[in-house]
Amino acid sequence: MAKIAIVYHSGYGHTKVQAEAVLEGARQVPGIEASLIEAAAIAAEPGAASWATLDAADAIVLGAPTYMAGPSAPFKAFLDASSGRWAEQRWKDKLATGFTNSAGYNGDKLATLQQFALFAMQHGMVWVGLGLLPGNHTSQGSPEDLNRLAGFLGAMAQSNADAPPELAPPASDRATACHLGRRIAEAALRWRSGQVPQRAAA
Amino acid sequence: MAKIAIVYHSGYGHTKVQAEAVLEGARQVPGIEASLIEAAAIAAEPGAASWATLDAADAIVLGAPTYMAGPSAPFKAFLDASSGRWAEQRWKDKLATGFTNSAGYNGDKLATLQQFALFAMQHGMVWVGLGLLPGNHTSQGSPEDLNRLAGFLGAMAQSNADAPPELAPPASDRATACHLGRRIAEAALRWRSGQVPQRAAA
Amino acid sequence: MAKIAIVYHSGYGHTKVQAEAVLEGARQVPGIEASLIEAAAIAAEPGAASWATLDAADAIVLGAPTYMAGPSAPFKAFLDASSGRWAEQRWKDKLATGFTNSAGYNGDKLATLQQFALFAMQHGMVWVGLGLLPGNHTSQGSPEDLNRLAGFLGAMAQSNADAPPELAPPASDRATACHLGRRIAEAALRWRSGQVPQRAAA
Amino acid sequence: MAKIAIVYHSGYGHTKVQAEAVLEGARQVPGIEASLIEAAAIAAEPGAASWATLDAADAIVLGAPTYMAGPSAPFKAFLDASSGRWAEQRWKDKLATGFTNSAGYNGDKLATLQQFALFAMQHGMVWVGLGLLPGNHTSQGSPEDLNRLAGFLGAMAQSNADAPPELAPPASDRATACHLGRRIAEAALRWRSGQVPQRAAA
Repeated sequence: MAKIAIVYHSGYGHTKVQAEAVLEGARQVPGIEASLIEAAAIAAEPGAASWATLDAADAIVLGAPTYMAGPSAPFKAFLDASSGRWAEQRWKDKLATGFTNSAGYNGDKLATLQQFALFAMQHGMVWVGLGLLPGNHTSQGSPEDLNRLAGFLGAMAQSNADAPPELAPPASDRATACHLGRRIAEAALRWRSGQVPQRAAA
Repeated sequence: MAKIAIVYHSGYGHTKVQAEAVLEGARQVPGIEASLIEAAAIAAEPGAASWATLDAADAIVLGAPTYMAGPSAPFKAFLDASSGRWAEQRWKDKLATGFTNSAGYNGDKLATLQQFALFAMQHGMVWVGLGLLPGNHTSQGSPEDLNRLAGFLGAMAQSNADAPPELAPPASDRATACHLGRRIAEAALRWRSGQVPQRAAA
Repeated sequence: MAKIAIVYHSGYGHTKVQAEAVLEGARQVPGIEASLIEAAAIAAEPGAASWATLDAADAIVLGAPTYMAGPSAPFKAFLDASSGRWAEQRWKDKLATGFTNSAGYNGDKLATLQQFALFAMQHGMVWVGLGLLPGNHTSQGSPEDLNRLAGFLGAMAQSNADAPPELAPPASDRATACHLGRRIAEAALRWRSGQVPQRAAA
Repeated sequence: MAKIAIVYHSGYGHTKVQAEAVLEGARQVPGIEASLIEAAAIAAEPGAASWATLDAADAIVLGAPTYMAGPSAPFKAFLDASSGRWAEQRWKDKLATGFTNSAGYNGDKLATLQQFALFAMQHGMVWVGLGLLPGNHTSQGSPEDLNRLAGFLGAMAQSNADAPPELAPPASDRATACHLGRRIAEAALRWRSGQVPQRAAA
């Protein structure tokens, strides 16, 4: 058994769709208990029950839209609110990964994922990426390909600015997010079942 | 004449000290009108007068502490609140630069400055960096050196976590911030006085 | 009059196509003298004439394919070979911008452009980005749009891994690179014609 | 048992000292077989035996000096030379981490570590960071502290530009590198001993 906590912010519903796809992927793996947490709901609530869910997780998945060159402000407020746990290194040695959505094909999505990875490293977590080769990068490729956006650090999604969450992000990006969910779940099972070496006195 | 708007967030006063040093540097340059803007005060106030100050500026200086791998959430809220202006490219061709403070010597300060530079690029602004060689990087160097932290993209400062803003960041980091203020001011005068080519029909 | 030096590496010809489009754009601007420099040809030749071309330029444009999460090694060798000039800050206050090509839509292209911008900041140069809103990011958009890849820090291009340089990158990416050439050229004219403030004793 | 391959480039010997400290740390952990590989010696030698060492490793540690805003060109040549293995994802699910040295306290060291992490993600590897809180960040701190440079993504070291490798990087940075070696070794044992879930048909 391993526990996955997916904490996200979604401004207009598209990143929520992506988060749900990650959740679906994680739940496809036997032995996984996975849940969604709305970052904006707990950022200013130190006593919210979801903090305990995060504390108990084997892996934390971070997701937010890319707004103006980084994760959305409500999600950043959640990241900042974890600083007490950081000071105690309470999340040390958990696994982590991330996802992001924006309207442009690039649109500085990488910068958001880089910030998530740095955040995880401050917490002493271990980062698991997407684990896929690029899709849609030859003349035989198509926008239907898994990882059509060629992300590696995490799952990227692209949603047209005028499309509702029913339509965007498209099926390929949802499948890519689902893949990330499976990957972090499998990694969590492996990591959790591994034997932790006894630490010699430093 | 050129106008410099320094917009910043400070959690405990240290980044404010850095902002004031940038302001002092900008004002040392003849022909400069410079002002400080508190980001947190205007992020949720679209009608605040300081937005007009930003709109009228020749150069915008962005400053925030580095919290948990990126700019503080209240500052990110300001960045996000500029998205309407981004969509209209109202800040296009202004100059921009930035500064950040944190307790560690590195502490992912570079990530904050990188986000600021990407933000400026989304707005179509032009980025001016610190323009200094590294200090304190030979056996003849000292922590008193200008640019003791060896930043390039903007001005970095380091404040001990238990030191009040009266003591931290130290004089060398204040002088480095002052240098950044002079540099952006001089660049703004040069850029403003330059002849803008007539754009041929695209 | 202003001089633009476009220094690039191209492994298979696609990035060369992009470089030529930047050159074409720069030359569309009256009063510009622009030239291409092959980075690999001068990286190990400190006496090569092209170094003097770079020294005399008002703006330097950096271009390389993104290989394995950063600029290609032959281009990195050129960047490293500039370290003597860096130590003397001989390129200080020049303008700079950049471009990159890879097979994936993202494929860590942003990381290459970020490295170029940091490099420029070490040299004390001033960074001019693409200056375009994203293309192809609404349901009315198309892959034919200018800036279809939604880059901001510089010009991005995507070339299918099995397509020859005659076909890839496609017309929209060539037009985007051409736009970058015009933009850096216009900025160079403006910057060059601007009045440099007299520096007071520091 | 787990195998650690530390592949590095060192221009003047300082990064080699750091690599040796990582090696020492890894070897302090019972059950570890660790070795050093000179990147420059194998980048152009596809048949070199060290490639097999890398292929057989449970964890790969990447180390290079930061030159001009990124890893040194000889090390980048090694990264690029791994592209055939990338296309086959032969290093998938190995662990990875990294280290870097430069003369400045920041000096864009973070950018080098970020490139290493992105590279690892392209290969489908899993990134293990330093796992330490910052040192020397309060009035009680000292340059003798472990992690005096406050890095998180990997181990940072700072060597005065005029100091020989006998003196630089200093003891604290060597101890920090040693810590990274122990950490990646312990993670490799845990990861290797973990049970890999059977993958359901995708």
